[in-house]
Amino acid sequence: MDLSRLFNPASIAVIGASQDERTISGQPIKYLRKHAFQGRVYAVNPKYTEVGGYPCFADIASLPETPDLAMMAVAAARVPAMIEACGRKGIRFVILFTAGFAEVGGEGIRLQDELAATARRYDIGIVGPNCQGIISTANDVYAGFGGPYEFRYKAGPLSLVSQSGGFGFAVANMAEDAGVGLRHIVSSGNEAVLGVLDFIDYFIDDPDSEVLAAYVEGLKDARRLLEVGRRALHRRKPILVWKVGNSEAGANAAASHTANLGGSAALYEAVFKQAGIVRVHDSLELADYAKAFQGGKLPKGRRMAAITVSGGAGVLVADELIAQGCEVQPLSPETTAKLRDVVPTFVKLSNPIDVTAGLFDREDMLEKALAALLDDPAIDGLAILVASITGKLAERVARQIAEAHARQDKPIVVWSSTRRSVAEEAYAIYEAARIPLYPSPVRAGQSLAMLSKYAAAVERVEGLAEAPPLVISRPDVRARLSGRTQDLSEFEATEVLAAYGIPVTRQRLARTAEEAAAHASELGFPVALKIQSPDIAHKTEAGGVRLSLNDRAAVAMAFAEIVANAGRNAPAAQIDGVLVQEMLAGGTEVILGVTNDSQFGPAVMFGLGGIFTEVLKDVTFRIAPVARPEVERMIREIRAFALLGGARGRPRADLRALADAIERLSALAMDLRDVVGEIDINPLIVFADGGGVRAVDALIKPRR
Amino acid sequence: MDLSRLFNPASIAVIGASQDERTISGQPIKYLRKHAFQGRVYAVNPKYTEVGGYPCFADIASLPETPDLAMMAVAAARVPAMIEACGRKGIRFVILFTAGFAEVGGEGIRLQDELAATARRYDIGIVGPNCQGIISTANDVYAGFGGPYEFRYKAGPLSLVSQSGGFGFAVANMAEDAGVGLRHIVSSGNEAVLGVLDFIDYFIDDPDSEVLAAYVEGLKDARRLLEVGRRALHRRKPILVWKVGNSEAGANAAASHTANLGGSAALYEAVFKQAGIVRVHDSLELADYAKAFQGGKLPKGRRMAAITVSGGAGVLVADELIAQGCEVQPLSPETTAKLRDVVPTFVKLSNPIDVTAGLFDREDMLEKALAALLDDPAIDGLAILVASITGKLAERVARQIAEAHARQDKPIVVWSSTRRSVAEEAYAIYEAARIPLYPSPVRAGQSLAMLSKYAAAVERVEGLAEAPPLVISRPDVRARLSGRTQDLSEFEATEVLAAYGIPVTRQRLARTAEEAAAHASELGFPVALKIQSPDIAHKTEAGGVRLSLNDRAAVAMAFAEIVANAGRNAPAAQIDGVLVQEMLAGGTEVILGVTNDSQFGPAVMFGLGGIFTEVLKDVTFRIAPVARPEVERMIREIRAFALLGGARGRPRADLRALADAIERLSALAMDLRDVVGEIDINPLIVFADGGGVRAVDALIKPRR
Repeated sequence: MDLSRLFNPASIAVIGASQDERTISGQPIKYLRKHAFQGRVYAVNPKYTEVGGYPCFADIASLPETPDLAMMAVAAARVPAMIEACGRKGIRFVILFTAGFAEVGGEGIRLQDELAATARRYDIGIVGPNCQGIISTANDVYAGFGGPYEFRYKAGPLSLVSQSGGFGFAVANMAEDAGVGLRHIVSSGNEAVLGVLDFIDYFIDDPDSEVLAAYVEGLKDARRLLEVGRRALHRRKPILVWKVGNSEAGANAAASHTANLGGSAALYEAVFKQAGIVRVHDSLELADYAKAFQGGKLPKGRRMAAITVSGGAGVLVADELIAQGCEVQPLSPETTAKLRDVVPTFVKLSNPIDVTAGLFDREDMLEKALAALLDDPAIDGLAILVASITGKLAERVARQIAEAHARQDKPIVVWSSTRRSVAEEAYAIYEAARIPLYPSPVRAGQSLAMLSKYAAAVERVEGLAEAPPLVISRPDVRARLSGRTQDLSEFEATEVLAAYGIPVTRQRLARTAEEAAAHASELGFPVALKIQSPDIAHKTEAGGVRLSLNDRAAVAMAFAEIVANAGRNAPAAQIDGVLVQEMLAGGTEVILGVTNDSQFGPAVMFGLGGIFTEVLKDVTFRIAPVARPEVERMIREIRAFALLGGARGRPRADLRALADAIERLSALAMDLRDVVGEIDINPLIVFADGGGVRAVDALIKPRR
Repeated sequence: MDLSRLFNPASIAVIGASQDERTISGQPIKYLRKHAFQGRVYAVNPKYTEVGGYPCFADIASLPETPDLAMMAVAAARVPAMIEACGRKGIRFVILFTAGFAEVGGEGIRLQDELAATARRYDIGIVGPNCQGIISTANDVYAGFGGPYEFRYKAGPLSLVSQSGGFGFAVANMAEDAGVGLRHIVSSGNEAVLGVLDFIDYFIDDPDSEVLAAYVEGLKDARRLLEVGRRALHRRKPILVWKVGNSEAGANAAASHTANLGGSAALYEAVFKQAGIVRVHDSLELADYAKAFQGGKLPKGRRMAAITVSGGAGVLVADELIAQGCEVQPLSPETTAKLRDVVPTFVKLSNPIDVTAGLFDREDMLEKALAALLDDPAIDGLAILVASITGKLAERVARQIAEAHARQDKPIVVWSSTRRSVAEEAYAIYEAARIPLYPSPVRAGQSLAMLSKYAAAVERVEGLAEAPPLVISRPDVRARLSGRTQDLSEFEATEVLAAYGIPVTRQRLARTAEEAAAHASELGFPVALKIQSPDIAHKTEAGGVRLSLNDRAAVAMAFAEIVANAGRNAPAAQIDGVLVQEMLAGGTEVILGVTNDSQFGPAVMFGLGGIFTEVLKDVTFRIAPVARPEVERMIREIRAFALLGGARGRPRADLRALADAIERLSALAMDLRDVVGEIDINPLIVFADGGGVRAVDALIKPRR
């Protein structure tokens, strides 16, 4: 949906405008006037002919033109009719402040459904209900109510949308205090029609929105985040997402607030990785990162340098850069030689390089030192720690840094502990040049490292374009599972896996003891026997498993015992037979899984078996389909990867076969997304390099 | 050392005072005058009779009285003589700004040693060298140089010492911006005489220093932190420590800066836990936490509630509290009933309770809601999220919160997103009442959770008073290891462990094949054989180990092989014999260790064996001696504790025997601290409950 007219309307109507500017219905007119909106403004209210200096009409139909945008704060019960009237007038955008919809439950949900249906019939883009409005700084559009509309925001590159009005403006204030200007601010409320992703989608195409941000409690169309995020990445428009509602108590509060369901934290994390979305955890972090992006430069790698007048600050920035995955390597001999000619002789030429306050003694010293560091091809970004210089000195230093920033393409971050009041000119220079300036070396380091992670994500995600995910189509399997409501037995489940090329344990289903013994002979001893019944989920506990059977007699006896146990433990259970399986020795147990989430669609999980999954929660998710390079990253990103990679004298596991299995499981998850709800392969055994993998047990639940 | 005269001098001399106030030696006089220091001030400089309005004397000896404090910025080479002159005059405190000492190495180290020796001879407390001075707000003592001295600090409860001048003042500025007043600020420089802990020690006894803070790059007397930290805890004076230099690159930079060696990060973490010291990672966090402590109330437990006018803010604060280990439980029926009568009917009475902006509609609503929540005995602390109210309303709300804060003893934190300019009166009320006010719900939640962690630490550490650590004295073992330079063989090492009551594998040392066979018969089969030689560290690689030997013949043959392998692989090795050991089945492998750190003294380590230690680094440290309750916390705090606690159907391990072993190892580490440098028990096998533990292999390195 093209939202240009919403953010740059030529005319605005305020439906139900009040002359009492203390009320919610009085404020929209007040703020349009206060901020000198240049377009045409109409009030609609049968009681008046004029409100706040603007002409007032009795009803929507009577307006002298079709306004680009209407604002509305009428009582909830009257809203559907008013939306209908807007539709008949041809109005394309409505900002709806009224509360009392889905967020209160019951009748509110019905009312919201009704207005959404009406909006869809007329193709009206509704912002809200239960929202605080929008601001578009370049066009003086201050279309909302409440305290935040008292202020003007400095125009700039940050466009943000918030599911909470309060937070949207809190973030905007913090960004502005940090020196980052705003382009659009949206409070999206209950999102009956337009949601966070519709706004982000529009910002991507808006040339003046350079940095995008969202405060998100939950998305109904979370899977779309992958597509929107990747489109933004491709256009080099970083998206900062502040996603809340991680803890259980938190998730409940979020659900009661915006009537959205909070998607699972793990799947959000997955999509952030897969789309290069930058996650933040507080308003200050959002402002810090927006500032870093505002600098407009991305590092080519993660090799960072720091130049400091304070040793302690150098330590802090190095600590933080390294903790965040950057490298802080010794300087090259060439750069060291260049610096030797520039800095005082007692300076140790390490990285960070602590030049002491002597850096500012000679006018050209900083300039030359910056040139030496920035010209070094082994340095991808620079932190400059100037500490607490003031007045003219601070101004000169700022000018030299701005020149260095302008003449090349490596990112620079600056730490200054000076109070603004004693370095006004310097602060103005940094802001004009959009150089990210931080009040602590830790935050300077963190922001520089974040740029490097984003740059890596760009490369990673763009690389996926050349690696289309594997697609496997098995209409026969889809058809077989269609309409199925019962869980699949282990035998059926492994058959499904095998159909998609995932290696499974060699096995046969036996219905008699003789059949079992014959199968065992064919498979070769030892074998395992497992009861197969859709009604027995915990086979071992039901006495339905026997392992390490070494001859036909043992197999026949075990068959009888298992069936007898099943009859005793679950007399009503439907018994499909007993599975005869080859026994495998050695290898490492891993777990693969699929969850078909209502908001994200199918996602694939990988982790190490046993304690690593159950106690340490050392697992990773990706939204399917997962392309091969991303599969390989999944394998390497779990903490216990070393166990597969050959640590502690173990043989290196067959990582290629493991990646094949995950890739095929992703293809399966996509192909069966309409019929399968959940899959657990536990364990999949990964043998030593060249030995392949084998799914030993599997559970498939149909989609319900 | 009593530092009262340093922080509250009646008279100050400035040695080498210059009339040029742009220079370092001119500024101390300038700032004493600027901030109207009320005591007597003398300049010392043969060139003048007056400096900046104060009388000037030719030399120290000529001063008309012995000043309480001298400041000095003379050239480094002249410093030792000047200190000597101060000593002869009877001066007890010197602030030494001059740089060029240990931080530059070489001759600087020698000069620093010399001045320290002189200071000790005359019992002079030196601040510095290479420092920026001190500030004591209550007495108008601004004794230093540089930009920060241009400002006056608001008086308040925070006293801080910093090993970096720049950071000390950056933190002080940030604290003041956050509404926290300062009492003392110290830049401790190279710490030739007085170090961070001397200042903290003094602050503990200073009644007006209520919250203590330190910026630390490295401590030479790190073990003392335990005693100083516990003393502070006992007096309920929280210590906030910002410790830097964690990464390798960071540690190097720190060493080059303050000429201190950075102690190991793990041991600092241990001592922070053991003494209830609060670690911070940035200046803003330090200011946030100082503000929380300034409130003066500690929670009795970790059950928190939040009341909010913004659903999103409620989610954020709940997320953060839970992530930091607090509980956010549903409200009790009693409290729910009380609130039902107070808040609007549509409000859902959950925790966090989202009362919407309606909370402010009736004058008494907030007051009654706060009373209901704070009177609930199942609530230990409260976050109040008022979002963006302004003017008179904000003032009324602040007043009601201040009343609630004053009349009871549970901590309250407040989030307001209002800009100060539109709520001046409210901000003033919060500050006067010392109510911690934060600009983000995340930081409010984090700070409240920190108070709860500190309160838990107080209880934990105070509890140790009733649990004196185990002491074992074995002068015979000490004597045997005295003067030893070679590592102990496995046999000798396990003998040492056994002497302290740590159960070890049953074993005998054999010198012939026959002896080995006889020992094996006594121990019972199967047994293991291991070569014993101080020259063979890697026994398995040298062919020096044979496992699972089931009869006398196998033992005799294995003996011959092992000795032959040793002769081939290490012809010059001294062979002490072959160890015959019982073989143990089952149990869980853990690792115990001791490191005798040059700064911390002996410390004890515990972790799970194999991958958990080597790959996941899942280990924990404590400075010895470790009392029993602390031993039990060590066991429970590793991530993989579930493996010992009975997860996944495993039997619960013998945790009592494990705790015994750690406690005894701690006693051993203390008893042998002068002779042992390092111990590794790898593995110690922990059997199922009641089965005890057994040290299977051990390495002891003497202290060198």
